[in-house]
Amino acid sequence: MSTLEKFRAISPAEFFYRNKEIAGFSNPARALYQSVRELLENALDATDAHGILPNIEVSIDRDTSKPVVYRITVKDNGIGIPEKYIPEAFGRVLFSSKYVLRQTRGLFGLGAKMIVLYGQITVGEPAEIVSATMGSRKVYSYRISIDVKENKPIILQRGVWPNTTGWHGTIVKIAVEGDWGRAKQKILDYVRRTAIVTPYANLVLRTPDEEIYTYPRVTDKLPPPPRETHPHPHGIDIEMLKIMAGETEEQTLLDFISNEFQGVGRVIAERFLRDYGFKLDKNPKELSKEELEAMAKALKEFGEFRKPRAEHLSPIGADLVKIGLNSILKPEFVDAITLKPVVYEGHAVIVEVGLAYGGAIEPSDEPQLLRFANKIPLLYDEKSDVSWKVVSENIDWSYYEIAFPAPIAILTHICGTKIPYKGVGKESVAEVPVIEHALEEGVRHVARSLKLYLTRKQREEEYMRKAITIIKYIPEVSSALTSFLSSNPEPVDPKAIEDGLFELVKKRYGEHIKELPHPRSIVLSVE
Amino acid sequence: MSTLEKFRAISPAEFFYRNKEIAGFSNPARALYQSVRELLENALDATDAHGILPNIEVSIDRDTSKPVVYRITVKDNGIGIPEKYIPEAFGRVLFSSKYVLRQTRGLFGLGAKMIVLYGQITVGEPAEIVSATMGSRKVYSYRISIDVKENKPIILQRGVWPNTTGWHGTIVKIAVEGDWGRAKQKILDYVRRTAIVTPYANLVLRTPDEEIYTYPRVTDKLPPPPRETHPHPHGIDIEMLKIMAGETEEQTLLDFISNEFQGVGRVIAERFLRDYGFKLDKNPKELSKEELEAMAKALKEFGEFRKPRAEHLSPIGADLVKIGLNSILKPEFVDAITLKPVVYEGHAVIVEVGLAYGGAIEPSDEPQLLRFANKIPLLYDEKSDVSWKVVSENIDWSYYEIAFPAPIAILTHICGTKIPYKGVGKESVAEVPVIEHALEEGVRHVARSLKLYLTRKQREEEYMRKAITIIKYIPEVSSALTSFLSSNPEPVDPKAIEDGLFELVKKRYGEHIKELPHPRSIVLSVE
Repeated sequence: MSTLEKFRAISPAEFFYRNKEIAGFSNPARALYQSVRELLENALDATDAHGILPNIEVSIDRDTSKPVVYRITVKDNGIGIPEKYIPEAFGRVLFSSKYVLRQTRGLFGLGAKMIVLYGQITVGEPAEIVSATMGSRKVYSYRISIDVKENKPIILQRGVWPNTTGWHGTIVKIAVEGDWGRAKQKILDYVRRTAIVTPYANLVLRTPDEEIYTYPRVTDKLPPPPRETHPHPHGIDIEMLKIMAGETEEQTLLDFISNEFQGVGRVIAERFLRDYGFKLDKNPKELSKEELEAMAKALKEFGEFRKPRAEHLSPIGADLVKIGLNSILKPEFVDAITLKPVVYEGHAVIVEVGLAYGGAIEPSDEPQLLRFANKIPLLYDEKSDVSWKVVSENIDWSYYEIAFPAPIAILTHICGTKIPYKGVGKESVAEVPVIEHALEEGVRHVARSLKLYLTRKQREEEYMRKAITIIKYIPEVSSALTSFLSSNPEPVDPKAIEDGLFELVKKRYGEHIKELPHPRSIVLSVE
Repeated sequence: MSTLEKFRAISPAEFFYRNKEIAGFSNPARALYQSVRELLENALDATDAHGILPNIEVSIDRDTSKPVVYRITVKDNGIGIPEKYIPEAFGRVLFSSKYVLRQTRGLFGLGAKMIVLYGQITVGEPAEIVSATMGSRKVYSYRISIDVKENKPIILQRGVWPNTTGWHGTIVKIAVEGDWGRAKQKILDYVRRTAIVTPYANLVLRTPDEEIYTYPRVTDKLPPPPRETHPHPHGIDIEMLKIMAGETEEQTLLDFISNEFQGVGRVIAERFLRDYGFKLDKNPKELSKEELEAMAKALKEFGEFRKPRAEHLSPIGADLVKIGLNSILKPEFVDAITLKPVVYEGHAVIVEVGLAYGGAIEPSDEPQLLRFANKIPLLYDEKSDVSWKVVSENIDWSYYEIAFPAPIAILTHICGTKIPYKGVGKESVAEVPVIEHALEEGVRHVARSLKLYLTRKQREEEYMRKAITIIKYIPEVSSALTSFLSSNPEPVDPKAIEDGLFELVKKRYGEHIKELPHPRSIVLSVE
């Protein structure tokens, strides 16, 4: 019988090494998918989030001698990583630029470190990073692995070159154990769906099968970059308040409350502090535990703060959603809407909905659902997502005159500094009423617009049928008229009669139909 | 356009504070369930894993002034926590006694720290811990919270008392925001299922509804405690090998390989090293990166190691499974089996299966499935668990003459130092073939035993019917005989005749039926 336990601390790197599945590295297929995904998301965050039109190349190469080993290379034209941060950004778990209150892609901010870790566990090669920041006169390269026990980078090689071309961006190359066969479909889906919401990006994917998928830029329009923001008082908890009060440089509660929170002006801050009996000139660092508790509670319940703002968020925008859907799905009809921001636990959330119909879309028994959260595609757990509920339960499609199977795709995008994910894997969004209502409103909007389009199209087709029926007889009528008028001193050009009759038909039907076929083109086509 | 990113490191405590849902603290209901679960698992690991018959009390008290605040108190009679470790065991994330290779309850070894963290975020009260190790002359108490930014305990109060009663164990009290209404059923299920596999424990649960659920000890038999073990060479990866080679006190590769791995004797170690061209007397600390890589690969592929041992594991044992099922489900029939260990990725895994039938079990359309992994009940994601596949797809129950609805419960237990959980939440086990086969073999074994029992029972019932038909006439026959013999000089006692006839029937049917009703008891019951 042992009566003593050995206690020990492990480093964050060792924790995640032991619990790889938390970050999505549960098996070789999933790990390959996860690696591509994280690197592509980082590349996008380094470009579009800083106003740069992204040029991104992803290559996945199979090691010819070791068939389970894949080398993933992702190259971007982003802002680059300052040299002093390169080792830690890739070699130290829980070190990131993403630990701020800002809409970013990615799930836990673990990102590249997990790939380096997984790669070194399964393959044992260091990660290679090449980077230059904007305007940097030098390009730096590093070969890095992680000291798991100490959670710090091991620098195996460092190189410096003159930056003769003015290049900026980052190239990351990591070898991991993977399973391309089983990961392929998810990776292709992932890149394709990413391309839908980034029509302003050049994306190239080179696969181990020597295939090249290119998604060329179809617009130069970028969404507004996300910005860092102050937390809204309603989204605060004791712990966050404690950290903020400890870190602030403000000397008085009045300055602290009015400058470090969003939605709080000086007048409101003063009223808030007086209402709850806090001294305006007290130093926030001197708040006692009890005062911090009382203040956290008060911040949550005070009703006069402005509601959370959404200007710091970066929705895709209805125009880009339409461009993206058009360019990738090649539908016959497309519409999209960006809804007014809603508030979830003190955080602004923006919902966007797009719809594509017909064209190259295959008919299916259910709407094809393309879900996104903070611009990243969600591929798993579709059926438990609030978007699925809205699209398949809340909406009666027959009301919009859609009968399944139908060629219809719905895109949903939820963005914010806090997304109510359902599971630990962050693959589905929970049924939060405000978000569900916004989604429903969005889907109804685009569905109405589709109904209108289909009704118009149907009417147009009817008119077209009628007009064509008439137009078809124009040559006959005109030739009859020509011979009837042949006794006339000035013989009539049958073509002029045709054109005249055609003008009459156009006047009658032209407002309903965009383009009518000229009688002569019809005759030709009838023959 | 911003061209610079702020990079920063966050402490493990801050990471988990930001990602509470990883450890199961996604909403108040789930958090309350998770808190009770973690504390109960710790209490069991502090008792039965050290040969102590557990006495554990769990109380959940609602704060009368703040209805969403619950105080959870868990008291055990375990080995206690050495005083010097108390603050860190509750106040430092990634500090635990569970970071060893040993079968333990719990998911990530985050345990109590996450509850302290969640409690301080939502309620703001420190955790209270009282503990005494075995034989300690003092009892220590601490009030602790976590410095999230630094990931270290803040000791708010420390108390020491003389240990006059010789008590040992731990009492933990933490206030968290919860939702008893929504968590209740899961918590009751969890405790009840825990009681099934710990029939040697006294468990008491006091709920906020003032209900008390008691699961008294029904046996003094304990399963063998789990023991720490060396890793098997087939379960190694480069990173693990690097850590082991760096930490070992062995001076030569021969000592290192033969003493720090399981399944490797000196002879095999020598052959292994020679086969792969390693020098026997090389210091393991001096292995180059390339050598470590080659050795990790070699350890995985060398076929002559003994297969992973299972003696360090702690299965429940068929007897205890039967006792547990009997005591909680009150069935009419029960059986269980502990299967031979199988090997999963270099780790031994033991599968156990129990079956309970009839009695107080309600009939249902599908077998009631009670899943356990390392003695903890799995309540979520049942349908995606390998056990569900085995019970609902692989087994044709009609072959065992079970027609649903039927009153049948199947218990499955998978234990090992590595469990192939499916999702991040670790609520279901993946369909690993060796484990699936073991489960299937187990279920077939207990199902056969049930079939035998049911066949026997049916036959017994038939014989019983026949015997009773005869026995019913015994009084009549005996009274007829008595009057027939009444002219005899020595009058016959009718009871003696009855007894004689009963003996005849017993001789005829006794081997098929355990107990026959005496004719006089039948007459009484017939009247």
